[in-house]
Amino acid sequence: MRTLELDLGARSYPIHIGAGLLADAELLRSGICGRQVCVVTNETIAPVYLDQVLAALEGLAVSTVVLPDGEQHKNLTVLNQIFDTLLGDRHDRGTCLLALGGGVVGDMTGFAAACYQRGVDFMQVPTTLLAQVDSSVGGKTGVNHALGKNMIGAFHQPNTVVIDVDVLASLPAREYSAGMAEVIKYGLINDAPFYSWLEENTGALMARQQDVLVEAIYRSCANKAAVVADDERESGRRAILNFGHTFGHAIETATDYGTWLHGEAVAMGMVIAMDLSCRAFGLPVAELDRLKALLARAGLPAVAPRIPPERYQELMSLDKKVQNGQLRLVLLKSIGGAVVTADAALSQVSESILACTG
Amino acid sequence: MRTLELDLGARSYPIHIGAGLLADAELLRSGICGRQVCVVTNETIAPVYLDQVLAALEGLAVSTVVLPDGEQHKNLTVLNQIFDTLLGDRHDRGTCLLALGGGVVGDMTGFAAACYQRGVDFMQVPTTLLAQVDSSVGGKTGVNHALGKNMIGAFHQPNTVVIDVDVLASLPAREYSAGMAEVIKYGLINDAPFYSWLEENTGALMARQQDVLVEAIYRSCANKAAVVADDERESGRRAILNFGHTFGHAIETATDYGTWLHGEAVAMGMVIAMDLSCRAFGLPVAELDRLKALLARAGLPAVAPRIPPERYQELMSLDKKVQNGQLRLVLLKSIGGAVVTADAALSQVSESILACTG
Repeated sequence: MRTLELDLGARSYPIHIGAGLLADAELLRSGICGRQVCVVTNETIAPVYLDQVLAALEGLAVSTVVLPDGEQHKNLTVLNQIFDTLLGDRHDRGTCLLALGGGVVGDMTGFAAACYQRGVDFMQVPTTLLAQVDSSVGGKTGVNHALGKNMIGAFHQPNTVVIDVDVLASLPAREYSAGMAEVIKYGLINDAPFYSWLEENTGALMARQQDVLVEAIYRSCANKAAVVADDERESGRRAILNFGHTFGHAIETATDYGTWLHGEAVAMGMVIAMDLSCRAFGLPVAELDRLKALLARAGLPAVAPRIPPERYQELMSLDKKVQNGQLRLVLLKSIGGAVVTADAALSQVSESILACTG
Repeated sequence: MRTLELDLGARSYPIHIGAGLLADAELLRSGICGRQVCVVTNETIAPVYLDQVLAALEGLAVSTVVLPDGEQHKNLTVLNQIFDTLLGDRHDRGTCLLALGGGVVGDMTGFAAACYQRGVDFMQVPTTLLAQVDSSVGGKTGVNHALGKNMIGAFHQPNTVVIDVDVLASLPAREYSAGMAEVIKYGLINDAPFYSWLEENTGALMARQQDVLVEAIYRSCANKAAVVADDERESGRRAILNFGHTFGHAIETATDYGTWLHGEAVAMGMVIAMDLSCRAFGLPVAELDRLKALLARAGLPAVAPRIPPERYQELMSLDKKVQNGQLRLVLLKSIGGAVVTADAALSQVSESILACTG
């Protein structure tokens, strides 16, 4: 097992990465301070991993919430199911929520923990690659609104993250690839050596070779932890973690959250953002081909759905990165060198969207 | 105009108290940093004060949300109306919400501000005495759940509080009295000289004499600000602000939030808590009579509705003050000397409830 620390002063927490961690009762219980715990999971994960986790928590007062699976259920109404259980089972301020699932479960559980009695503890036990390298670390929590993704939420840090790579063995290929999009992102925005390492190890990663996987997750989380420790509430540099996401969110919204997986949309968004980086910052076009080749080997799309540039711009104007009317985008000055900028011309944005559309 | 500062480091903010402040455009705009503002009010307040506030905000991009009036609408579903407007009108992270109304409007607006895009600015412009001396100051925000009051929420501080005493002229007598309950509370828990001052000035206060009113609100807010500055997130001493509230919330829940106003229930809860303080801490019984006399002059009830002690205890076991299974109560060791304690015997709690029930 490898352990990283996310350094946030009083809100610092460990991120444990390894095999067989779900069965490690001592580790799972390390984040639970009181006698109450509420495990939140979903219909897909519950039949596979819930019993194992409940066994590890034996002796505590445990409630369980099984949510419907899918991004379309990440809303205030479904969130209320968690509050129903917490209140019905009389969880008090000393309780701890445990998110057992992918990004949707993690975001909703974290937000429920942020709001329940104005804030209780929670633990992340992510079961998808995407959640392991991205959403379980950093404290962004929330739900979607019909008019925009992740528009209602809170910054609320978990007290522990437990990443068991064993669970990835059963992850469907498409979801595994979607997670790889975020892994590749860390290389692109902050870590050129890691980007090269990923190119060299794509074969082993796609074969889900465990030691290579632990290394990839460790380096992804280390990059994320460094960025978050610098700027917890995204007043500045943390925004580079959204590389590809502004375009990606527009794709997800335009396709009604369902056709494209989040990671797939982000991969596509990274292609558009890199195309735009070539136009706006003179990044060599060869880098665009290099990225497309890596994404292809990782099973990810590089051709955008047919959405008119005006529709993108309409959706992007709703993005959280807009402030006082100005859309800020994350672009690359070099591999490993992301910047947040409002400098790209609107005409260039449209050109990049069209160039990347099938 | 008198101004207090709530000292919370980077989250410090001014509380302005005076007459005619709603018409003071410069003051109202002092809390708005960007070009967008969303005024949240209710059906009762909108016809009376909304135009005045909108006139003061002329030139900014202003949205308005008019919520239904009443505690029964303080829930996640109605909260979503605020998000609908914010997203429909494309408010970005630089927006500011302005709560124009009583405690329900303030709590919901503050919670919406806490959650919208994971946190935006908000201003409190309270229009009831209760909101002016209590809920608008200190950053507690939230909504109710069918199984408990204020169970879903956040600590989110406003950036400015503007208290215009002119609006109290039109406040119904019953609501005015309900606000007086919280004013009296500050004397009881933290400020014996203020308690005596209130006894001396009850006549002028009930006649809503403006200079006396400004003084009463200033001293109430100063007491609250001092307690909050010490313990923003209620890990300890801040809980004394809940004096009377644990019993009061039980009364509100048992009577389905509607028969008793919050302040009336708190007044009643203070009587029970003081009766219990006499039993548990030997506070002189004469103090109980003194409190009942003051409450009567302030138009507040001192006889509890017929709810069996078991039902109280069931409802109180859901209270946020419960931690790791133990109910902590706020009791008085002396006038001005509140303590948080788990020492009162359950039998004494029942005796006090029965002694105060009609």
